Amino acid sequence: MYVILVYDVAQMRVGKMLKLCRKYLCWIQNSVFEGELSEAKLRELKSQIGSIIDADTDSVIIFTNKMSYNMDKEILGKERMSTDNFL
Amino acid sequence: MYVILVYDVAQMRVGKMLKLCRKYLCWIQNSVFEGELSEAKLRELKSQIGSIIDADTDSVIIFTNKMSYNMDKEILGKERMSTDNFL
Repeated sequence: MYVILVYDVAQMRVGKMLKLCRKYLCWIQNSVFEGELSEAKLRELKSQIGSIIDADTDSVIIFTNKMSYNMDKEILGKERMSTDNFL
Repeated sequence: MYVILVYDVAQMRVGKMLKLCRKYLCWIQNSVFEGELSEAKLRELKSQIGSIIDADTDSVIIFTNKMSYNMDKEILGKERMSTDNFL
């Protein structure tokens, strides 16, 4: 399924989150990632996020859409990174 | 349609962008907003974004989905703000 993930975590955990999210998704802007993941891979990712974040202070939002062809994306201004290399 | 907007703009323009996006969408995390907008309202928002950002350095990504019931959202950790008050 198509996944958009945005995180807001304490500075000390940013490096770990960045590394983890890059393993599964494509970085598109700041703390925003997107990509196609199977349900199993998404569960795996969520489990690993759970072991990194402090649930009392950090926040991770995961949007999912089973039908990615329904989603449109438009970039105004500068594109931070090519997002064509979907997983 | 259902809209997710994320922005990454220079510090001096953050205040303006925040104010603008809040007029149209619900703030959910850092520089991430979501909500339901008509095509006309979305055009209006994009036009105003265009007049604020510096297209050479700033970046705004707008995801849209005509069928919002296809989207799921999950929050891991702390919810920054109630997102139930959809427009």
